[in-house]
Amino acid sequence: MLLSKLVCERTKDAPQDAKIKSHILLSRAGFIKQVAGGIYSMTMPCQRMSKKIQNIIREEMDAIDGQEVLFPVVMPRELWELSDRYNTIGSEMVRFKDRNNRDMLLGMTHEEAAVHLANHIVSSYTQLPMMIYQIQTKFRDEARPRGGLIRVREFTMKDAYSFHTTKEDLEKYYYRCFDAYNRIFKRIGLKNFIDIKSDSGMMGGSIAHEFMLLTEVGEDSIVLCNDCDYRANMEVAEGRINKAECEVEPLTEVFTGEDKTIDEVCTRLGKKAEFSCKAVVYAVKGNSEEVVIAFTRGDLEINEAKLKKVIKRDIVPYDGGVSEVIACGNIGPYNIDKSIITVYDKSLAEVNALIIGANKPEYHYTGFNFKRDMPDAEFYDISKVRAGDTCPVCGGKLRIENGIEIGNIFQLGTKYTKSMGMTVANADGSLFNPIMGCYGIGVGRAIASIAQESGDEKGLVLPMSVAPWQVHLCPLRIDNEEVANKAYALYDELKKAGVEVLFDDRDTAAGIKFNDADLMGMPIRVVVSPKSLATDEVEITIRRTKESQKYAYSDAVKVIKDIIAEQMSELNA
Amino acid sequence: MLLSKLVCERTKDAPQDAKIKSHILLSRAGFIKQVAGGIYSMTMPCQRMSKKIQNIIREEMDAIDGQEVLFPVVMPRELWELSDRYNTIGSEMVRFKDRNNRDMLLGMTHEEAAVHLANHIVSSYTQLPMMIYQIQTKFRDEARPRGGLIRVREFTMKDAYSFHTTKEDLEKYYYRCFDAYNRIFKRIGLKNFIDIKSDSGMMGGSIAHEFMLLTEVGEDSIVLCNDCDYRANMEVAEGRINKAECEVEPLTEVFTGEDKTIDEVCTRLGKKAEFSCKAVVYAVKGNSEEVVIAFTRGDLEINEAKLKKVIKRDIVPYDGGVSEVIACGNIGPYNIDKSIITVYDKSLAEVNALIIGANKPEYHYTGFNFKRDMPDAEFYDISKVRAGDTCPVCGGKLRIENGIEIGNIFQLGTKYTKSMGMTVANADGSLFNPIMGCYGIGVGRAIASIAQESGDEKGLVLPMSVAPWQVHLCPLRIDNEEVANKAYALYDELKKAGVEVLFDDRDTAAGIKFNDADLMGMPIRVVVSPKSLATDEVEITIRRTKESQKYAYSDAVKVIKDIIAEQMSELNA
Repeated sequence: MLLSKLVCERTKDAPQDAKIKSHILLSRAGFIKQVAGGIYSMTMPCQRMSKKIQNIIREEMDAIDGQEVLFPVVMPRELWELSDRYNTIGSEMVRFKDRNNRDMLLGMTHEEAAVHLANHIVSSYTQLPMMIYQIQTKFRDEARPRGGLIRVREFTMKDAYSFHTTKEDLEKYYYRCFDAYNRIFKRIGLKNFIDIKSDSGMMGGSIAHEFMLLTEVGEDSIVLCNDCDYRANMEVAEGRINKAECEVEPLTEVFTGEDKTIDEVCTRLGKKAEFSCKAVVYAVKGNSEEVVIAFTRGDLEINEAKLKKVIKRDIVPYDGGVSEVIACGNIGPYNIDKSIITVYDKSLAEVNALIIGANKPEYHYTGFNFKRDMPDAEFYDISKVRAGDTCPVCGGKLRIENGIEIGNIFQLGTKYTKSMGMTVANADGSLFNPIMGCYGIGVGRAIASIAQESGDEKGLVLPMSVAPWQVHLCPLRIDNEEVANKAYALYDELKKAGVEVLFDDRDTAAGIKFNDADLMGMPIRVVVSPKSLATDEVEITIRRTKESQKYAYSDAVKVIKDIIAEQMSELNA
Repeated sequence: MLLSKLVCERTKDAPQDAKIKSHILLSRAGFIKQVAGGIYSMTMPCQRMSKKIQNIIREEMDAIDGQEVLFPVVMPRELWELSDRYNTIGSEMVRFKDRNNRDMLLGMTHEEAAVHLANHIVSSYTQLPMMIYQIQTKFRDEARPRGGLIRVREFTMKDAYSFHTTKEDLEKYYYRCFDAYNRIFKRIGLKNFIDIKSDSGMMGGSIAHEFMLLTEVGEDSIVLCNDCDYRANMEVAEGRINKAECEVEPLTEVFTGEDKTIDEVCTRLGKKAEFSCKAVVYAVKGNSEEVVIAFTRGDLEINEAKLKKVIKRDIVPYDGGVSEVIACGNIGPYNIDKSIITVYDKSLAEVNALIIGANKPEYHYTGFNFKRDMPDAEFYDISKVRAGDTCPVCGGKLRIENGIEIGNIFQLGTKYTKSMGMTVANADGSLFNPIMGCYGIGVGRAIASIAQESGDEKGLVLPMSVAPWQVHLCPLRIDNEEVANKAYALYDELKKAGVEVLFDDRDTAAGIKFNDADLMGMPIRVVVSPKSLATDEVEITIRRTKESQKYAYSDAVKVIKDIIAEQMSELNA
């Protein structure tokens, strides 16, 4: 490809809203162009990278017996009412009426379409296990698209759906896919990624894993143990906290005046926050009159994902107004209004003497003891794990890192096959609902993740397996006839040898050419210049290591092919 | 691929609404499954076929210097307001509001996105010509989806956009793409296709061609000459009609009573229809008070596409009510109300004595002569060509055939670059709006066209270049150990040799296996049976010719590879 013709503009500056490296570099290198919030066009280099990633995904999905199919982007409401997701998914799902006034939607995921396709076709247990997958455009109306291709509204995704006779068979297949995912991420050049247990959220299943690229710009918090391989998404992570040891005291009402926050009250009473009880107020989503108060130890934070699981309802921040008790701010478990849904964190059960709100202005209690004063209280794990807490598996210390979710896999169970009436005959003729798994990878997010992890101060650094072109050929002084002849000849030879080359055919300064080559990130840069040709050589630079070396012009094709083979075999190892 | 695991159900019957061969066969072979009107899922065989077609298109687009990019499916209203298409395209375009109440739409075509991508990036004439294309999902809310994949609402399409400095350069590129299209259709195995001049309709350009597969189930009417290579879509076809010769007569008002139709009036007056003047009434779209009356010879029909071009307005059928003259039915050109837009077909100019309506009940005129009685009338070509009319090029006879549009190319001009403010600097520094071309092929329609043209009474007959698998391997009596061993060994050997094989591993009757193989249409069927193995042979059948021959088992791989190579070289010739 001739760079002079490539529709792809390199710029010194990134768009103002580009804050993270991948967004900045993909924009500056001209790989992406924004059309609307969270909606991008991809230029040729980016689309080539996307197709290479898709092909690697495809190979690995085919290797675990996946059948590539195609589901529609636009689906009718009726299909999504069978699973009840038409009503339960919020405004992130685009709904519209077609010209005949029928309700349609844009698919964000395709469980319903997968069951619709398999239903009636797969009718015997002998056809199981089977997995169908597609690679296609999806639209999810994210409230806050951000980070370039990290969190977009429109994206290309591989989504796969497997069907099984037994839970054991699903589990076996699930871990085959798990392994395939590890191979995919390695093959596309990602390095610092891990798998973690996750909350399956709206997918409606139980066991699930997320694959996370560890990076400080990640939106997800991940809990990891320094000593064993325990790791989990913050939403489901468990940790053991230090016990707050103290003596039992009598329950005593104390005047605390205008002091209300944990800090203020603990300071006034000369106690540490871990001897107090914190109250956080929510309302049930869709019913602001139904109040939920979560209590935990004063030094901990509520984990809303865990809280939702306990109360089996969605919650929103409480916006005030229904109760005097809540308005006064001194909220405590003792004698609290029974109409309020209360949940107690397990950390509270162990503290012998707690400071709690007295549910009236200007007063708190000290010496509150759940066992003695509220023996019927039940306790749940609803607090966030903190760095330094104790690993629930090995007793080591936990740390917290940020990550970008690059893939996820779920054991779905029978939610969709049951609700959509898909049955399959067993060996004895009895009918059963197949057990499903589902498996997703976002292609655009993979591109962003690679840019984020591998990019350096000069630009993109693209792995050999997914780089749009393997070689960036830079003739310097192309107005020099010998340079031009030798450069074009090398370009042709490389192409003949099956090497993918981006050829900078512009008559422009070396500095501009080198900056563009560094910014665009092809793995190998080849320079042909009057200087190199003086000794009949070319200069070959590895983008990743910045190592440069001169080789005889006549060896160039062989050297380049060897470098490509070496880098590919590293990625496929 | 093992047939026993393939999610793809063969059936004896097609869905009730399947009326044409391609729809029936693709449904019966289990290639497609309907999700909603005009919306389908594709099973693995169909998706494999789709990908092979996409790759052939990709190769040919890359060969004419196309750059594959990706535009968004969902676009903001603002982008389409620049070209004014947000308002001018009707309900076939899906519009919706996003969660922030912004107007969005689903792209049916991507001129706006192409200009948006190229704008500012392409800033110098040295970057031209250039062409960008994508292969992606589109949604067009067709009023009447029909024919399976022939006319759908959601489809995969290759759409390409080229940008040029001069009209001559566009023309040169346009015909490169024209040639590429011919290669694509040949390579995917279509035979009876032609290119024809067409009306560029809403695309807003001037010169355009459609590629048509000639087939009786086609929705388009195509005019072809029996003697030269003149051909055109009915919408733009010109023909010379036989002249209606008669003597000049005086203009005479005659009583015609309740007779109103051409038939009734001509019968009463003892004249042929070609000596009468037919009036067809329309209203301007969006303004039912603005009436348009098109006049042509009594034996001809109005061609609405041509009429729209003449009046430069869109029209709808007139639904009555605004004028007594129109209500009486006897409409004629003579002294007609001047507030009505009237258009006269050129056939009328030559007739010396016409029967025309008198614009009042119960009366017509005879002997009307435009030259004498309405010397200011202007004439246009607004009539449909009929089979048997004279070719405008060579004077031969025209015939009319039906066709399916399988591709189209347009010379767009500057409509989009001008309205979207895209300018490029010329050699002298002056700015100009690049001249565009655009080029489309629907992948699903290509699949349907292949099924339609090549399918036979037993099922699909798929060309080697696009068949999901090259070989359908049918062991008979797979419960026989030798058959099973030899069949599985051949399956493995073929796969090792790079041959794509669908392996019917089911323990089922020969009749069922053969019916399925015929229905699914792979180009080569290989049978391994106790009978064939008795002489250590396999039986190889060519689906297309139905020729069967036995070969030594040990030669099978070589014979199959030779057949594949031969059929591929035919397609690529």
